[in-house]
Amino acid sequence: MLFVKTPEEVLAMIQAEFSPLERMETVSLSCAMGRILAQDIEAKEYVPDFDRSTVDGFAVRAADTFGCSDAIPAMLPLQGTVLMGEGAAFSLNPGQCAAVPTGGAVPEGADSVVMLEYTEDYGDGTIGICKSAAPGMNMIFRGDDVYPGKVILKKGRRLSDADIGALAAIGQVQVPVAKKLTVGVISTGDELVPPEVQPGAGQVRDVNSPMLEAMLTAFGCNVKNFGIVIDDEALLAEKVSSALSECDAVLLSGGSSVGVKDAACRIIESQGTLLLHGIAIKPGKPTILGKAGEKPIVGLPGHPVAAYFITKLFVQPLLGRLIGRDMPAYTVTARVTESISANHGRAQYHCCRLSKKDGQLYAQPIRGKSGLITTLAGADGYFCIDRDCEGLPQNAEIQVTITGGV
Amino acid sequence: MLFVKTPEEVLAMIQAEFSPLERMETVSLSCAMGRILAQDIEAKEYVPDFDRSTVDGFAVRAADTFGCSDAIPAMLPLQGTVLMGEGAAFSLNPGQCAAVPTGGAVPEGADSVVMLEYTEDYGDGTIGICKSAAPGMNMIFRGDDVYPGKVILKKGRRLSDADIGALAAIGQVQVPVAKKLTVGVISTGDELVPPEVQPGAGQVRDVNSPMLEAMLTAFGCNVKNFGIVIDDEALLAEKVSSALSECDAVLLSGGSSVGVKDAACRIIESQGTLLLHGIAIKPGKPTILGKAGEKPIVGLPGHPVAAYFITKLFVQPLLGRLIGRDMPAYTVTARVTESISANHGRAQYHCCRLSKKDGQLYAQPIRGKSGLITTLAGADGYFCIDRDCEGLPQNAEIQVTITGGV
Repeated sequence: MLFVKTPEEVLAMIQAEFSPLERMETVSLSCAMGRILAQDIEAKEYVPDFDRSTVDGFAVRAADTFGCSDAIPAMLPLQGTVLMGEGAAFSLNPGQCAAVPTGGAVPEGADSVVMLEYTEDYGDGTIGICKSAAPGMNMIFRGDDVYPGKVILKKGRRLSDADIGALAAIGQVQVPVAKKLTVGVISTGDELVPPEVQPGAGQVRDVNSPMLEAMLTAFGCNVKNFGIVIDDEALLAEKVSSALSECDAVLLSGGSSVGVKDAACRIIESQGTLLLHGIAIKPGKPTILGKAGEKPIVGLPGHPVAAYFITKLFVQPLLGRLIGRDMPAYTVTARVTESISANHGRAQYHCCRLSKKDGQLYAQPIRGKSGLITTLAGADGYFCIDRDCEGLPQNAEIQVTITGGV
Repeated sequence: MLFVKTPEEVLAMIQAEFSPLERMETVSLSCAMGRILAQDIEAKEYVPDFDRSTVDGFAVRAADTFGCSDAIPAMLPLQGTVLMGEGAAFSLNPGQCAAVPTGGAVPEGADSVVMLEYTEDYGDGTIGICKSAAPGMNMIFRGDDVYPGKVILKKGRRLSDADIGALAAIGQVQVPVAKKLTVGVISTGDELVPPEVQPGAGQVRDVNSPMLEAMLTAFGCNVKNFGIVIDDEALLAEKVSSALSECDAVLLSGGSSVGVKDAACRIIESQGTLLLHGIAIKPGKPTILGKAGEKPIVGLPGHPVAAYFITKLFVQPLLGRLIGRDMPAYTVTARVTESISANHGRAQYHCCRLSKKDGQLYAQPIRGKSGLITTLAGADGYFCIDRDCEGLPQNAEIQVTITGGV
């Protein structure tokens, strides 16, 4: 029995059927990039922890400088000099000033800093201030950037390079992140040989195993490759069972013939529950989704381009759900370079190459009669033609998801 | 002497002053993701290497089916059955058919495949074909996807997960890639302590070292962290010299005070040539660029947000130039949630958070009085206000470069 769902229904089903695993570990800051935060990160201290100058100059009480100018500088005795990396060992009395470097501590009693350019050193321990200061000028106050309790980064975020900087700033050198998922990959098909083997008559190389390994690794998973299994239901059942025992999720790919698809369904049903058989999408319709306990099993189409899209569009959101990862998705706007027909009652996905001309981005659909794999090679992104759309005219504006080259 | 350049001039200078290093190495397919191709990849064989069926069905000569229908099927004797992963051991004579699975080899003599759904097996060795076939129908011909000499991927491309699939398909399991660059990172400043150390009076944590390490690692470089050097010209010169001997490029960060900037310039001049002192950009103006032999030395601003932007906007293109990497850059279109002033005669960069509402993407500038680091934390991207622009009104359309969360 087939139950084909729309992409939206499949994504909703993923949210409903699977829950975050909530497994945390702590990694050092230098290993945290790209990991998923398992907790909100709250600052425990002030950044900066002292009032700082943002310029090279003289710390003053602003009131002592009001009305001064080049012609009538305020003459302030130099109370001391602040060194970088040290606190100000003195405080400022009314009518005094102190030399402060960029980033240096502003002494107590001062409320602003006048840039070096607007001062004159008379050499007798007196500094002439030639520009009046406003309170707070050229200063960062303690805690301006961060204060205890401020949430710096939120749970679920994939940590960027900039986030690593922010964590360093607050001294969060141990970072609570979601444990990596381990995903098992099994390729099925009597016709498959490993990529390093020269195919014999009627054979083709296994594209999906290395491609899925690359996709899942880039997504932040550990991948266990269970190799190629011939189309034998008992053997496949055994392999799925051992993959399930070692992994958090299992991807079966291939088995595009009717018999093998049925076998995959029976195996999923014997291990757990079959949730889905077919997605209204092109390419990628013959997709199976099930769960064994809480572990997802996905039966991907054998066609590499179909397996690619199903993994991008559904498997990654599913794995993101398990790991509690925020999944923002952005698209760039482009114009399609040629008309494309679509009339399948299914959302239709195309890979494309992008180029810029006169500030306008153009997307050239990558066509291929067979589309085995070269429609993926060198692709910069992909776009979707909606189920209800009969095609796109040349120059139509489309939204492209970037996938390559960057 | 200062020579401030515009961002465009700096990028042109990078192209003019530095050349690709052209250092190649070969890595296995499973390690090639994210690496930069050092050569065009040409296929050496046909994919597929045989005529394949795209459906489960019967291979026929199309001419034998012309005019057939449900009511008047063409009755064709079954010449044989093709098994997956094997060549067709027989060829088809006129008036015959052969059972072929999806992906199986189409026997010689056949020119099309009729789907199982449109056939009937009479059980006596005869198959009824109920739908006429057109030549080529439901078939992929040898070399349809790839043929010897076809360029699959071009030199300079950063390999994506999909590209890995394409390389697997043509059996390119050893991949020629550009050798990784080794980049040295030195932080300078008497006020800096490593992130794991609790800052004392007047001290702050070194944000730039871990942030730059994350940025450069993500960009595909090996990073050598030379730690924190106090503001001492002789010590710094020694450290720069040893970093130059071990690395392909050296980034100095910090030294925001005038004295240290001058020291950095003198060190670069003693080791090679000072190319640039200052970029007309905010934040990030106090940037230094030089070269020692062919090796770039960059003096980054000490302010983490400034160091971040200079690294994204100039250091990464510079490293990309050295490694021969294509650097496509895409932006998403968003509306700014609040008005922003700009009036500096410099291109002004802002970090932002992105959110979607009713299909429209909104960019909220992340403001911070000091902007030490929290303007970076949790940023989804950044946008630029042009040098000639006096600011943006609320809801203005902007182009955002995505940097985080995805």
